[in-house]
Amino acid sequence: MRRHLFVAFFAIAVAHGAADPLPSWNDTAPKQAIIAFVEKVTKDASPDFVPPAERIAVFDNDGTLWAEQPLYFQLLFALDRIKALAPHHPEWKDAEPFASLLKGDGKAALAGGQASLGKIVMATHAGLTTEEFEKTVNDWIATAKHPKTGQLFTEMIYQPMRELLAYLRANEFKTFIVSGGGIEFMRPWAERTYGIPPEQVVGSSGGLRYEVRDGRPVIVKLPEIVLNDDKEGKPVGIQRHIGRRPIAAFGNSDGDLQMLEWTAAGQGPRFCLYVHHTDAEREWAYDRESSIGKLDKGLDEAKAKGWTVVDMKDDWKQVFAVESM
Amino acid sequence: MRRHLFVAFFAIAVAHGAADPLPSWNDTAPKQAIIAFVEKVTKDASPDFVPPAERIAVFDNDGTLWAEQPLYFQLLFALDRIKALAPHHPEWKDAEPFASLLKGDGKAALAGGQASLGKIVMATHAGLTTEEFEKTVNDWIATAKHPKTGQLFTEMIYQPMRELLAYLRANEFKTFIVSGGGIEFMRPWAERTYGIPPEQVVGSSGGLRYEVRDGRPVIVKLPEIVLNDDKEGKPVGIQRHIGRRPIAAFGNSDGDLQMLEWTAAGQGPRFCLYVHHTDAEREWAYDRESSIGKLDKGLDEAKAKGWTVVDMKDDWKQVFAVESM
Repeated sequence: MRRHLFVAFFAIAVAHGAADPLPSWNDTAPKQAIIAFVEKVTKDASPDFVPPAERIAVFDNDGTLWAEQPLYFQLLFALDRIKALAPHHPEWKDAEPFASLLKGDGKAALAGGQASLGKIVMATHAGLTTEEFEKTVNDWIATAKHPKTGQLFTEMIYQPMRELLAYLRANEFKTFIVSGGGIEFMRPWAERTYGIPPEQVVGSSGGLRYEVRDGRPVIVKLPEIVLNDDKEGKPVGIQRHIGRRPIAAFGNSDGDLQMLEWTAAGQGPRFCLYVHHTDAEREWAYDRESSIGKLDKGLDEAKAKGWTVVDMKDDWKQVFAVESM
Repeated sequence: MRRHLFVAFFAIAVAHGAADPLPSWNDTAPKQAIIAFVEKVTKDASPDFVPPAERIAVFDNDGTLWAEQPLYFQLLFALDRIKALAPHHPEWKDAEPFASLLKGDGKAALAGGQASLGKIVMATHAGLTTEEFEKTVNDWIATAKHPKTGQLFTEMIYQPMRELLAYLRANEFKTFIVSGGGIEFMRPWAERTYGIPPEQVVGSSGGLRYEVRDGRPVIVKLPEIVLNDDKEGKPVGIQRHIGRRPIAAFGNSDGDLQMLEWTAAGQGPRFCLYVHHTDAEREWAYDRESSIGKLDKGLDEAKAKGWTVVDMKDDWKQVFAVESM
């Protein structure tokens, strides 16, 4: 009988998190702050208790859940699509940014900035039905390799953040992605990679049109933007898709600042965290001057407001599930 | 010990639905079809088993979950707002549709059709912050009475549908509203009334702008439409917010036809149901000729496709939680 009691006690202790829920985090301030926050909002007797329905946590994707260097992975997807589609678009030989891209001159192709990017994204993302696009993404994500590490892109997920997602969900948080990346680009693999179902993915969104083709209903992706889910667009995306203010927000760049600001401004306990890329050896080191994932104003705000900043080099025991760099 | 076993058996029997999960439904074909569908998609050994993550069920709101006569309730809300706001808008005295409305001539006010409706909705829904609008809706829904029954509008919910929502959720379905009504109008009360959280409410949506006012972040409602969640807009709203195809869809009008069509066209087991308003005594009787909730093409499609049609008079034992008509 005593042995049974012991086994039962052990099972309960594990269920309540006596086992380390964040083994890839060093025991530094960010890990302690995360655990202290989760404990205070989940303990019934706590003055900071938050009912499960209101435990909304939002995560940026690029640079927060997975890497974003040397280019946003969705852009690498788009460039691969340009190459694959080129035979059907002879006109691209004489039209920028496609001509430079197909000659392998990425720098010239992107010289046009946002306008060039827009053309590349529209050419590769619109026109398909949502089912066709989903298949294209699934094929790419299953096979394409990162130019530096040679890993599948879904292997370039941050292991500490994956543990954090699981830890929050074990404490009855609902975890959402709120990303500047395309909503239809993330949904096909977010559930198996992050445990986040499609209805909890918020992202930049294009127009959609419902139509019946040969008696079969389809939804077609249109070349127009209905949500640019970046900067001021992030609180808008949160309101449109979630409809209530998160109590915890996780980002890594100035593009996430308004999301953290909106989260922090709510009543009651709030948690805001920035991932700071400080690890040139295991990942990349960049912040105020970077063209991708620039973290400048956000770093100052985090200090001013007392938000948690993860120093990737010091605070993460392990970066990727498979260390490859 | 035997007594304990008996108690345990009884508890399991109840948990597995030996108690009637749909007591307000007569034991006619629709109830039988609902239960047969739920059983076949939830039984592990069934060839039609659907994993819980894919058990998405979508419900229209007006005329499907709550009544919609003599006018959509959101329109009654807007009319009350016009009266409340009139002192701040002296220009309305000379501008239609406001002038007629304020003279109590609803018929003249609505003579302009969609354009008049648009003006009324914009004047009462845009310009506020999302928090201000939510408070306005909460105040109205807590006090306003239905012109015919004298009941609060949240008492004009269909009791059989409320049981159906609970029954589906007990079987690990995720229940969503997909309504032509305004998303910000439904969210404030959908959770306590239907058990549907804001992030599972899809509806017609206006533009939103994030801004910082006097150091405090707010989201402002703009006078523009980003989703008209009716007819072809319903599958679009489903794709935008949910990102996967439902396996069950519930509606009551031609405005829901594309949602049912999109649901039915998916692979595997599907369930589509129309509520047919046939009960002039306990509710209202209307279909092919009604200006509100017209059900014409949908009724033909339901017959052709073998969808379930609820005859409100014959199939519902009780209509509202409180019978008042």
